[in-house]
Amino acid sequence: MTANLDALLSPNSIALVGASPDLHIFRGRTLKVMLGHPYAGRIYPVSRSHDEIQGKKAYPSVAAIPEPVDLAILIIPAEHVPDELERCGVAGVKAAMILASGFAEARGPTGKELQARIVAIAERYGLIVCGPNAEGYANTAAALCPTFSPAVDNMIVPLVPPWRTRGHVAVVAQSGGMGFGFYDRGRAKEVPFSYVITTGNEACLETFEIVDHLLDEGKTDVFLLFLESIKDARSFERAAAKALAAGKPIIVAKIGRSDAGRRASLSHTAAVAGDHAAYQAMFRRHGIIEATDIDEMVDLAAAFSLCRERLPAGNRVGIGTVSGGGGGWLADACVAAGLTIPILDAPTRARLDEHIPVYGSSQNPVDATAQAIVASGYGELARLIVASDEVDAVIMIVSARSAASFEKEADKLATIAKASPKPILMWSYTLPSADTTRILSQAGYPLFTNMAICARTLAAMVHYRAIRERHLP
Amino acid sequence: MTANLDALLSPNSIALVGASPDLHIFRGRTLKVMLGHPYAGRIYPVSRSHDEIQGKKAYPSVAAIPEPVDLAILIIPAEHVPDELERCGVAGVKAAMILASGFAEARGPTGKELQARIVAIAERYGLIVCGPNAEGYANTAAALCPTFSPAVDNMIVPLVPPWRTRGHVAVVAQSGGMGFGFYDRGRAKEVPFSYVITTGNEACLETFEIVDHLLDEGKTDVFLLFLESIKDARSFERAAAKALAAGKPIIVAKIGRSDAGRRASLSHTAAVAGDHAAYQAMFRRHGIIEATDIDEMVDLAAAFSLCRERLPAGNRVGIGTVSGGGGGWLADACVAAGLTIPILDAPTRARLDEHIPVYGSSQNPVDATAQAIVASGYGELARLIVASDEVDAVIMIVSARSAASFEKEADKLATIAKASPKPILMWSYTLPSADTTRILSQAGYPLFTNMAICARTLAAMVHYRAIRERHLP
Repeated sequence: MTANLDALLSPNSIALVGASPDLHIFRGRTLKVMLGHPYAGRIYPVSRSHDEIQGKKAYPSVAAIPEPVDLAILIIPAEHVPDELERCGVAGVKAAMILASGFAEARGPTGKELQARIVAIAERYGLIVCGPNAEGYANTAAALCPTFSPAVDNMIVPLVPPWRTRGHVAVVAQSGGMGFGFYDRGRAKEVPFSYVITTGNEACLETFEIVDHLLDEGKTDVFLLFLESIKDARSFERAAAKALAAGKPIIVAKIGRSDAGRRASLSHTAAVAGDHAAYQAMFRRHGIIEATDIDEMVDLAAAFSLCRERLPAGNRVGIGTVSGGGGGWLADACVAAGLTIPILDAPTRARLDEHIPVYGSSQNPVDATAQAIVASGYGELARLIVASDEVDAVIMIVSARSAASFEKEADKLATIAKASPKPILMWSYTLPSADTTRILSQAGYPLFTNMAICARTLAAMVHYRAIRERHLP
Repeated sequence: MTANLDALLSPNSIALVGASPDLHIFRGRTLKVMLGHPYAGRIYPVSRSHDEIQGKKAYPSVAAIPEPVDLAILIIPAEHVPDELERCGVAGVKAAMILASGFAEARGPTGKELQARIVAIAERYGLIVCGPNAEGYANTAAALCPTFSPAVDNMIVPLVPPWRTRGHVAVVAQSGGMGFGFYDRGRAKEVPFSYVITTGNEACLETFEIVDHLLDEGKTDVFLLFLESIKDARSFERAAAKALAAGKPIIVAKIGRSDAGRRASLSHTAAVAGDHAAYQAMFRRHGIIEATDIDEMVDLAAAFSLCRERLPAGNRVGIGTVSGGGGGWLADACVAAGLTIPILDAPTRARLDEHIPVYGSSQNPVDATAQAIVASGYGELARLIVASDEVDAVIMIVSARSAASFEKEADKLATIAKASPKPILMWSYTLPSADTTRILSQAGYPLFTNMAICARTLAAMVHYRAIRERHLP
């Protein structure tokens, strides 16, 4: 059965146990981060030593709060957590997020005993418990950020790009640093995140129960997971099958390919990483996409977020380029990723040749030369290539350093992407400006800076569509 | 014999044949870019239709210029190039850079005939000719940029980071887009470039003659090459051996791993890409480092630029991290790249444990936890790890989003890097700010954003040192 995690992830009232006025420590920072966003629910600081904290009335205990509390955030020393959790249970709190560290991941037996007590208390009261050793979460739709992560502090931009209304990405991560790292990198690429949820040791609630809940909730289209272990194979199987049926890709970083990685997971979240080959077989079976770097994770999420409804039907790629040298280089990268670069059909080439000077090429890669791009624009070139029956997808090589030319053809680019049943990706050999990134993302084009990742992402899209079609009636 | 290319790359006087007042076309843009930098030599626009262009007196022909000209830049239609080159020869011009396209790379026989005429004229007059189909170059020390590349136009920063006095990187690229793309990406990472030289079809002068010249000149420590073909194996062998002896790494992107890549090279610069396996064997023999993406090229250059005098003696890596999850992930990436992550020795661990809370780990990866980093700083952690006899290099996992903490420990970081005979690299899981990038680079730490590239770069450093020690007496 799927757990209803609304009390944890969409609470109406929150107790912050351990709140502090000191902005240099995590207990003070967490309240500050929460108050920095326009969350519409109630936040109750709980403190034994203060009546007021950061302008909010504080309460001496959870029991003293004048209304039933959905969620308690615990940032107190590990040894006090079980007793406090017990008090939360007695007070009728529905869910708890434990940010404290020093449990099963710590050296010595004490932490393990503390964690076992947490599990017992959670079961006794039917409490939903996330953590311990977590870094909190962000629910962007609710403007709710119970976390000390700097990634959602002092925001000068909204939590989600205002123009994004779909294709939302949820992060679920055993590591707080990596989880909010995905957010930090992805936000800069105009990726809309629904949630960033960090789970730490997963003493009670584990990743795939959360995925299952988010699938039911329906606000998320792509999942980015950072896993040190999978605690429950059945819960994994259920969520993975449900996601595949819904066409909502799961992108995974699974730690523990090496002995050193497995050692690190054990000391980080007490996770037993297990045999990696077995995990990979399990991932492949369920169409789960594995990535080995943070850049790759975020680029995969950005691409599926924009293109999951027009995935390529095969692995034949058309490359259109302003740089002849870049065309050959990307062709090599595509072939290395398992894609093919067919020579285009004669009618398409004839149409392209009307735009391309004699020292360019329409064969594929289509080397339009800078002159043709200046004259005709990237959009026109992409439109002609993507119309060819010889290709299942297009990658355009662009220089995204300056936004001016993209600004000019933004409407045309949007029309072309919308009309095309095939995805069109872009790779920039110069460093994209923030404006270009926004314009292209808004027009429906995932923009890559790393060529190898661009090629591998397209290959993952091909593979994901194929496995879905194989699995579904 | 090594060609003296000073007339081409460090001229005292330049004729710009085809100069135009129209800033929307390459002929106008090239003059504008040149005039935008404080080059100390003389620039003479040559034009049949104007007496003055962009504020400079223009001349009707190269012969009419009142002094001997070192270098002629030709941006005129391909069919006029041979005659103009002949006139340059007659006028005693020493070198020519041909930016025009439409030669051997073009469809049909005309271009190939034009290119053959260029070769004959260059030989007849002893002219040094670069191109055709090139995009010009940048000589940063001379503030000389005869190119239409936007990458060196409208600079709001100096061509080279002002604090950089050594570790300069020269780009030599058959592709103008890629060559200046390396510059654009690398400049943002505080990499000091000595030259960006684009060579196009290499009808006469080819990449390794230029590398040879730059080695003799002595202003360059690292080479970034974009190759579609190697025209002359002997010139390659000579330059490669000389670079290896000098400890000046050559990093190469070689196009043509795939049929499609070879096809693209042929239509781009008329290059016959050849068998890639044979190239790779040749590269390995000479300690040449091959990379498959623009990010990887630039990161390799940045790392060798800062650390080429303290390369790792072996493949044992110490990882220090603020994020436990990141530590395991990076350990996996290091092992995948052929590196090892040994458990640290007891005395080092005892020293580390004084800083690390009970829920961290000193084994390796050293999971210091965010608390210990806030209290002790990244520098102290790096210092303790790098001192261990068990490691040959260190990678620190940092959050480089905010510069504040790095600013505070900048002096200490610089002292530690300077004192260490082993390299210390950094990988940031958040998007680095420009300030952090500068601070860390200035302190001697290559900063990576891509974890897989970070691991592969360190492996390349290990390999490069090993191959040098094997080859040298």
